[in-house]
Amino acid sequence: MFDNKEKTNLSELGEFGLIKHLTSHIELKNESSVKGIGDDAAVLDFKEYKTLISTDLLLENVHFDLRYVPLKHLGYKAVQVNLSDIYAMNGIASQVTISIGMSSKFPLEAIEELYQGALIACEKFNVDLIGGDTSTSSQGLVISVTSIGYAKEAEIAYRSGAKEGDLICVSGDLGAAYVGLQLLEREKQIFLENPNIQPDLEGKDYIVERQLKPEARRDVIELFRFLNVKPNAMMDISDGLASDLFHICDASKLGCKLFEEKIPIDPMTYETAREFGLDPTVCALSGGEDYELLFTVPQSEYDKVKNQLDISIIGYMTAESEGKQLISKSGNVHELKAQGWNAFS
Amino acid sequence: MFDNKEKTNLSELGEFGLIKHLTSHIELKNESSVKGIGDDAAVLDFKEYKTLISTDLLLENVHFDLRYVPLKHLGYKAVQVNLSDIYAMNGIASQVTISIGMSSKFPLEAIEELYQGALIACEKFNVDLIGGDTSTSSQGLVISVTSIGYAKEAEIAYRSGAKEGDLICVSGDLGAAYVGLQLLEREKQIFLENPNIQPDLEGKDYIVERQLKPEARRDVIELFRFLNVKPNAMMDISDGLASDLFHICDASKLGCKLFEEKIPIDPMTYETAREFGLDPTVCALSGGEDYELLFTVPQSEYDKVKNQLDISIIGYMTAESEGKQLISKSGNVHELKAQGWNAFS
Repeated sequence: MFDNKEKTNLSELGEFGLIKHLTSHIELKNESSVKGIGDDAAVLDFKEYKTLISTDLLLENVHFDLRYVPLKHLGYKAVQVNLSDIYAMNGIASQVTISIGMSSKFPLEAIEELYQGALIACEKFNVDLIGGDTSTSSQGLVISVTSIGYAKEAEIAYRSGAKEGDLICVSGDLGAAYVGLQLLEREKQIFLENPNIQPDLEGKDYIVERQLKPEARRDVIELFRFLNVKPNAMMDISDGLASDLFHICDASKLGCKLFEEKIPIDPMTYETAREFGLDPTVCALSGGEDYELLFTVPQSEYDKVKNQLDISIIGYMTAESEGKQLISKSGNVHELKAQGWNAFS
Repeated sequence: MFDNKEKTNLSELGEFGLIKHLTSHIELKNESSVKGIGDDAAVLDFKEYKTLISTDLLLENVHFDLRYVPLKHLGYKAVQVNLSDIYAMNGIASQVTISIGMSSKFPLEAIEELYQGALIACEKFNVDLIGGDTSTSSQGLVISVTSIGYAKEAEIAYRSGAKEGDLICVSGDLGAAYVGLQLLEREKQIFLENPNIQPDLEGKDYIVERQLKPEARRDVIELFRFLNVKPNAMMDISDGLASDLFHICDASKLGCKLFEEKIPIDPMTYETAREFGLDPTVCALSGGEDYELLFTVPQSEYDKVKNQLDISIIGYMTAESEGKQLISKSGNVHELKAQGWNAFS
């Protein structure tokens, strides 16, 4: 995914040299970042705020395929999906640490690309990179990201906070990242069979971007502050709408009623799913990797959210005894099934 | 490293099942741990304290060899070496996150062992496990640990805080972990050549333990509080005394004078190094992985530290222009060389 000119060998630099090279130009922007990279630990100060911590491990050939993911996108995505967890608590992300394990045969320029992508994501969300670790990997590329953020106690939205009757809402649209992945996988197969055929992704930019370059919804958190809305429960959609809604139901000891016709699906996602013989609704329910926010608000907030273009009201929370229901477009009642991604299957 | 009876397949449990299985019995003990595992992010509250964050990535065949490291020891060590970074800031560790990537062929019992070791380390230091990530790895075992701790502003010991004339001190003894590794490597080679020969580590318990089961020096931090001593600069010895002292010199813009005869080396380390034809002083200077604390204190604190059995005064900080000197046992002046571990060589 990178050309071969101007290669610098990592072993020439050494670990300290590499860290210095990658991080010496980083400036801390958050008041809470007292000390970043360069000591045994970073020092942060959150004063009257609670600290939020989230971490993700990304492994080559499990979470990403270097044959079609450019390294810069990978660094960007690794940070975005982790920040997304902080926003999903209704908090503001302020710091990240990034650890990278890679083959010593990787040229410096490749790591720079990865780091550059990570730093673009940090910059976009005003997040400071404050630490990490670099190491050779005798196997594939390994990326570990930890995000740190903050929120006032009353602002924090736990999964367990949903109340019966709450409106179930979702930001953006769903299923695109999954359909984008199908498209990339198909083009990879064609390429593997005949390397002279260039990938044909024309007109599919949106769904390919949703897979390669997801955007954490900090803007939705800011919208909540602007509208003076506090979600009772929230999480980000990483495993798929159904699986993630199950987590809210289980943690809140409630059931739910979801309306198929209300689930936001982009027309390009819809069409491309059909081309692949996939049910667009299933893609939205079980596809995952959308990194949209799934949240519940009291019905009294209906007027505040109903006209927000980027928020869809897709159902409501019910008593646990009513189960988890999906009402199809034709009005039939189905049991909602969680078919999220199983990392071990 | 684990027997084959009672295997449970990870794919039967799935990711959520595995996390639940491993973490459901965890009780939070620190007041600062508001919410641990089970939401998008953990929630912490440090009130008037600064937050300290440190992270390490450990990769199979780079940082550990499963052929001679039992999984329980590995989990224990992974946590210990990371907590060590928090103590090295003169802080108290309070939380960790642990992410693990492993082959789906690993039985549940193997992960339980790893986790058990990590939890024993947490328990020993009164640290809460508050999050993490689990994933299949198509390559080797991957462990990522992030530690969180706290300290008052005035307590924090940065690398950059050393002053000219400061006494250079070190806790415990040095070189044992490196010599222990040589021993384990030798026995591995013998075993690979003839699997019927059992490893001969008799009488070498101490140095083998120093390699397999290092102990972070929380007790030294407590001793500082007890003695009312605040180190001007501090770090933990992970790369070797010389390399780590270089970091303090460079960050503090100072030189140093180190006395070979003052460097604490255990008799077993000394003897075993000699058996391997190694210079014990070089093992102490460049071996690494001791996880002892290297710190400087003002000369006015001499009376407080001189009689502490577990602390050795090994030199003092000089002006930068005097360079970094090692005074040998015979009184010769050598230039101190940093030959720490290069992760990319």
